[in-house]
Amino acid sequence: MIPDQDFIKKQDIPGPTKEEVRCLVMCKSQVSSKDVVVDAGCGTGGLTLEFARRAKKVYAIDKNPDAIKVTRLNLQKHHLEGNVHLIEGNAPQILNEIPDFDILMIGGSSGELPSIIEKGYQKLKDNGRIMVTAILLETRVEAVKAMSDLGLVVDVIDVSISKGRIIERGTMLEARNPVTIISAHR
Amino acid sequence: MIPDQDFIKKQDIPGPTKEEVRCLVMCKSQVSSKDVVVDAGCGTGGLTLEFARRAKKVYAIDKNPDAIKVTRLNLQKHHLEGNVHLIEGNAPQILNEIPDFDILMIGGSSGELPSIIEKGYQKLKDNGRIMVTAILLETRVEAVKAMSDLGLVVDVIDVSISKGRIIERGTMLEARNPVTIISAHR
Amino acid sequence: MIPDQDFIKKQDIPGPTKEEVRCLVMCKSQVSSKDVVVDAGCGTGGLTLEFARRAKKVYAIDKNPDAIKVTRLNLQKHHLEGNVHLIEGNAPQILNEIPDFDILMIGGSSGELPSIIEKGYQKLKDNGRIMVTAILLETRVEAVKAMSDLGLVVDVIDVSISKGRIIERGTMLEARNPVTIISAHR
Amino acid sequence: MIPDQDFIKKQDIPGPTKEEVRCLVMCKSQVSSKDVVVDAGCGTGGLTLEFARRAKKVYAIDKNPDAIKVTRLNLQKHHLEGNVHLIEGNAPQILNEIPDFDILMIGGSSGELPSIIEKGYQKLKDNGRIMVTAILLETRVEAVKAMSDLGLVVDVIDVSISKGRIIERGTMLEARNPVTIISAHR
Repeated sequence: MIPDQDFIKKQDIPGPTKEEVRCLVMCKSQVSSKDVVVDAGCGTGGLTLEFARRAKKVYAIDKNPDAIKVTRLNLQKHHLEGNVHLIEGNAPQILNEIPDFDILMIGGSSGELPSIIEKGYQKLKDNGRIMVTAILLETRVEAVKAMSDLGLVVDVIDVSISKGRIIERGTMLEARNPVTIISAHR
Repeated sequence: MIPDQDFIKKQDIPGPTKEEVRCLVMCKSQVSSKDVVVDAGCGTGGLTLEFARRAKKVYAIDKNPDAIKVTRLNLQKHHLEGNVHLIEGNAPQILNEIPDFDILMIGGSSGELPSIIEKGYQKLKDNGRIMVTAILLETRVEAVKAMSDLGLVVDVIDVSISKGRIIERGTMLEARNPVTIISAHR
Repeated sequence: MIPDQDFIKKQDIPGPTKEEVRCLVMCKSQVSSKDVVVDAGCGTGGLTLEFARRAKKVYAIDKNPDAIKVTRLNLQKHHLEGNVHLIEGNAPQILNEIPDFDILMIGGSSGELPSIIEKGYQKLKDNGRIMVTAILLETRVEAVKAMSDLGLVVDVIDVSISKGRIIERGTMLEARNPVTIISAHR
Repeated sequence: MIPDQDFIKKQDIPGPTKEEVRCLVMCKSQVSSKDVVVDAGCGTGGLTLEFARRAKKVYAIDKNPDAIKVTRLNLQKHHLEGNVHLIEGNAPQILNEIPDFDILMIGGSSGELPSIIEKGYQKLKDNGRIMVTAILLETRVEAVKAMSDLGLVVDVIDVSISKGRIIERGTMLEARNPVTIISAHR
């Protein structure tokens, strides 16, 4: 994984998704070099870059132009622009305009999560996967509901990571905010 | 419990122990109005004040004069000075000089945890309790070992609390650093 | 707190709420000997008994007759029947029939959480408190929403406790399922 | 990752390491197809199999013949025996007898963790990595200390995962016991 501190950050743009959560998302997504990935709500680009290293093609979408800018800077910094299409705009609409894909990653949804899941599902190839990372209580429930409503078997893991900081007196655990990863296979 | 934000704080003085952890310490200590309590490493005074509200008498010890000062300010602010003896000094030595007690609370130990537990145990009345709150990996192990070496049955709970913050888009969980409460009854 | 193992249990009846969660609920509820408490969905009676020890009067409601039975057995075992009214029935309806109260505790809601909160709020005395313990993702969100809709300031804590088990080789942490405590003051 | 339920299990043999922890260990170890890996205390073989899929060669060691047997069965079941050497015996001794390696994974240490780390470090190639998964409080501290004593920069993450179980009434979170991953690079 790319270390957290190796990402360029921009004020008011969320992310990057922490290293350990990116790792778990990569595992759960079963991404391979044959996969086309959509990263909806790319933010700082944390997951975009990890998918870029592993997938065939990545569409990274964000309605915030600053998020697109900082994701581009991070792709450039890590020489990963080659297979990434950056698209500024509204995810539910853009999903209609791009070709079918294997993985739909939703890290940010601006309150449109059910619509993104529903529209994304229609463009998901056979054996495709939908992934949501949720930090809000409400988003967790919306993601589970939207995937269940599509008849999918939903996998939910709630992840709490504390990082050890070694100080003179010993090893302190510093908690990271919990993140829930909700995923399903077509 | 006294709300976290109702404590006066002082730079470089740890604490106050968070509300939820104070609550669990009070329950586990089974403190009553007949109990004499020693609070070793009182820091900001978070636990000192809670014990002061419930116990007969509290000896609050800290080797840092600034900790004694800020604990005094907090006791005054909450009108709880009446039954608290503030003592600046080294806990292992002071334990020798004070009368027997019912509860030994160790929130800070400056690397002398085994010695404080051992000396404190000798002055612990029948049915007395020893409580340690640990934020370091090393302190957890030292506390379990020192209490087990005395032949005590040790209770260990590792506590991770996240607080919900309600923002426009929903409820975010913000993690607090984990704390381990190690306790034993004589 | 009453130790977890000191409760009589009955198959298919949830609870008792674990010791540490009961402790936190008691703290957050600020229960005193002047308070009238309603415990909706009392299950095994874990919280009923703790409130019975601290409050003036407790109405314990459950629609499952077996829950009422096992709560009665636990009250008898701990000699706490004196100030508890056990009521078999549907909480939203029973809330209409009992006098006003200071604390509404909702541990089980059979899918009627919003209705229980709304009706309970109307009978809540000044400075009254509403408490929900939630183990489902969906219940957390419902509780936050129903309380926010009433204009209340909502307190949310997500509690993960691991208990240490001391075995020959060392101290193992055994995780308890996370519980969220949602509460608000009138 | 191989699903947890796809491993053959044997009574009294610990493991397999849960899917999410295996995922994090793979990420932290930065294993590649050029790496020679030692898996000390292989247990059920959970990590052995994941390394076998990614590394050049794996030495899996366990002093318990039943652990060797069940790891072999799991390798066979998943057709991964090709690059794995199974060795029944004492890790500190066997480390002396095998060629240098890139990754030392210690999942079980039978109380000999400091010695395994110390001996393993001597055989670690440039840019090699040492990984420990710890479920005991004591092992966490031993691992941090042994790696720090070698002058290494130690990475500590404490991982708490809850799995969602979707039942009729909603989504319940079921906690897994916390695991700490301690790692360092040469």
